[in-house]
Amino acid sequence: MSIITLTTDFGLKDHFVGALKGKIFSGYNEAVIVDISHHVDLFNVSEASYIVGAAYSSFPQGTVHLIGVDAELTKESRHIAMQWNGHYFICADNGILSLLTEKIVPQKIVEINIHDRLPEGSSEMDAFVTVACHLAKGGLLNVIGREITEIKQIHDLNPVVATDNKSIRGCVVYIDHFGNCITNINKKQVKDVAKGRDFEITFSTKTIKSVKMGYSDFTVNERFSLKDYEGEKLAIFNEAGFLEIAIYRSNPSTVGTAKTLLGLKFRDVVSVVFK
Amino acid sequence: MSIITLTTDFGLKDHFVGALKGKIFSGYNEAVIVDISHHVDLFNVSEASYIVGAAYSSFPQGTVHLIGVDAELTKESRHIAMQWNGHYFICADNGILSLLTEKIVPQKIVEINIHDRLPEGSSEMDAFVTVACHLAKGGLLNVIGREITEIKQIHDLNPVVATDNKSIRGCVVYIDHFGNCITNINKKQVKDVAKGRDFEITFSTKTIKSVKMGYSDFTVNERFSLKDYEGEKLAIFNEAGFLEIAIYRSNPSTVGTAKTLLGLKFRDVVSVVFK
Amino acid sequence: MSIITLTTDFGLKDHFVGALKGKIFSGYNEAVIVDISHHVDLFNVSEASYIVGAAYSSFPQGTVHLIGVDAELTKESRHIAMQWNGHYFICADNGILSLLTEKIVPQKIVEINIHDRLPEGSSEMDAFVTVACHLAKGGLLNVIGREITEIKQIHDLNPVVATDNKSIRGCVVYIDHFGNCITNINKKQVKDVAKGRDFEITFSTKTIKSVKMGYSDFTVNERFSLKDYEGEKLAIFNEAGFLEIAIYRSNPSTVGTAKTLLGLKFRDVVSVVFK
Repeated sequence: MSIITLTTDFGLKDHFVGALKGKIFSGYNEAVIVDISHHVDLFNVSEASYIVGAAYSSFPQGTVHLIGVDAELTKESRHIAMQWNGHYFICADNGILSLLTEKIVPQKIVEINIHDRLPEGSSEMDAFVTVACHLAKGGLLNVIGREITEIKQIHDLNPVVATDNKSIRGCVVYIDHFGNCITNINKKQVKDVAKGRDFEITFSTKTIKSVKMGYSDFTVNERFSLKDYEGEKLAIFNEAGFLEIAIYRSNPSTVGTAKTLLGLKFRDVVSVVFK
Repeated sequence: MSIITLTTDFGLKDHFVGALKGKIFSGYNEAVIVDISHHVDLFNVSEASYIVGAAYSSFPQGTVHLIGVDAELTKESRHIAMQWNGHYFICADNGILSLLTEKIVPQKIVEINIHDRLPEGSSEMDAFVTVACHLAKGGLLNVIGREITEIKQIHDLNPVVATDNKSIRGCVVYIDHFGNCITNINKKQVKDVAKGRDFEITFSTKTIKSVKMGYSDFTVNERFSLKDYEGEKLAIFNEAGFLEIAIYRSNPSTVGTAKTLLGLKFRDVVSVVFK
Repeated sequence: MSIITLTTDFGLKDHFVGALKGKIFSGYNEAVIVDISHHVDLFNVSEASYIVGAAYSSFPQGTVHLIGVDAELTKESRHIAMQWNGHYFICADNGILSLLTEKIVPQKIVEINIHDRLPEGSSEMDAFVTVACHLAKGGLLNVIGREITEIKQIHDLNPVVATDNKSIRGCVVYIDHFGNCITNINKKQVKDVAKGRDFEITFSTKTIKSVKMGYSDFTVNERFSLKDYEGEKLAIFNEAGFLEIAIYRSNPSTVGTAKTLLGLKFRDVVSVVFK
């Protein structure tokens, strides 16, 4: 018995998410369903990719991740299911999984081919639900699809290492609830390129001299308490391993956020510069 | 053991929804609870009616649907529970169920009469929770209420067929997360009135010549890919069976929505005109 | 087996809440998790305190309440777990629990000391999750912490009784989804100070002559139906026991709310004046 997670751009007001869960329970009455997000920007495949990539590893091996973003079955986009790093992912072949597969090779990918076995009037989500229930019950990928080896890649999300190895140039790929700006530069890549060198973080006209170990990794003594650092900019590798530009105790309605205080926007360039 | 679904106008910030679930688990520790929506517009009975009507059929038979919208027990509004089409519904008698009962005759309706058997200080929701747990465990309607045959109807939500059978005049009853505009005209009614005739959809000064089979049901060839159709208006019968005016890959922050591009608002007239 | 509830300021768009649940299921695969709120204002300890205090008693005894607001482990803020009134609470020692402990003495409080037993790279939430799973499975507090007797108090949230016992001066501590304004004055305190005297509610230049038994506790007769009272101001003790200034059928987009119609804001003074 595996968990089924849901990541969609459906929002929470409409009946869509409730109906999706109803269908899962209709297909598998012992299902355990966990919402990851239903607030992905509409049709935003990059954002869905970041969110799923940041969440999946907190779940047990064998978890089935259903991604309902830009999921219509069209002549240009097929439905796929992938076994990767011990987890299952079900989505349209629109590039969502490319952030994952560039890091670790998939165990198996299939093109879902059960659509004409479903009752008349079935939707995209009916196909995804059928596959999710099948996999959550321990079913095999071969039963619901035909093995394939290539899936669509989104390449513009990869950071670029300078030819002289003196810097890595990435960009802001996600801005979170706290207004913190997450880049596509990950800790492992920085470590690999650094080879022991120190580095600083630059964006626009600003520089951050070092990466903190935690959000509140400031000097506290008789003169300064943590409260004195509220609103300070900082860089950190977040739990998902990505370089993040943050404001200490960031709050859109009080001290401000990385977005409001530093002017950082989605897709803005952030670089790691080695010394 | 049946699922209990929740549809309310409580929002998700306050403690209300969490407390409601706590009460359900206190009454039935093996409950399976699924949120349909907690973002119904405040006291908006029509909207609650649409959402529940669109969601219920995705759940297994026997599911108990608790509707916490305009639910205060007053001299003007009693509490009711209804068995209908194999599902149970618990709500105030304020018209929420009329969209359902005009299509299919209820199996049984009771006026809930357990309020004076509850502990002192109990609220509306305590009564609903007690009934929901009772029904989810397989209990009978007779135990928690007195059978009635009439419930309040909301009639202004019904589309009108022209006396010459040349058109059906409906209106926008719901605008979804994608900005698509759903009308109260359903597929079965159009088919019944059409008797094989072709038809087009009109609203304001605009006409849509045909109903698509899917959102991406556009001609794709060497000259045009699906991307070229983004922002196109279209009509479709949605999964719940209702006529919907949509924009292909609708997005409030990019291509726009049926609401922003076509000027459609809640309650605006949409007609089906037969040829 | 106990329920685990979650109250955070994480929002629902990011992967944070999904990942938190994934970790709980990884630690305890039969967990029953209930969201109380993920929309607490960022780092707003008072608000978290009100929400948890209003929700907890709807859950069964033994429920474990995890509070992820301002939860970073710093030199100034330790992690604590408390057994209180038959429930468990896990949070940072930042004052969140003081609204509870001023009413009822805790059964036991421990400073969580398992952090160095967790895998490298573990976060605050990993510590909270480990403790929550331990307690939900029936584990003892002593195993995960060292007993303490004092926790941080937030005092500015307490209402003040006039020295002549003629009034209680409180303030608005929470504004709910309906725009109703909840004060920190509770029913028991009013009753204790009243000693049978009548009282009225005052704020700004306004007076409310009496407290209603329910939102729709208006005179209904041949001349007036409940509809005629929409938009009327009223005072009520809400389900959580706190004095609330409300508008009958309050709705930000139609009749208005206590906030918009009466000008009440967070922290505004509200008094109970005895006769």
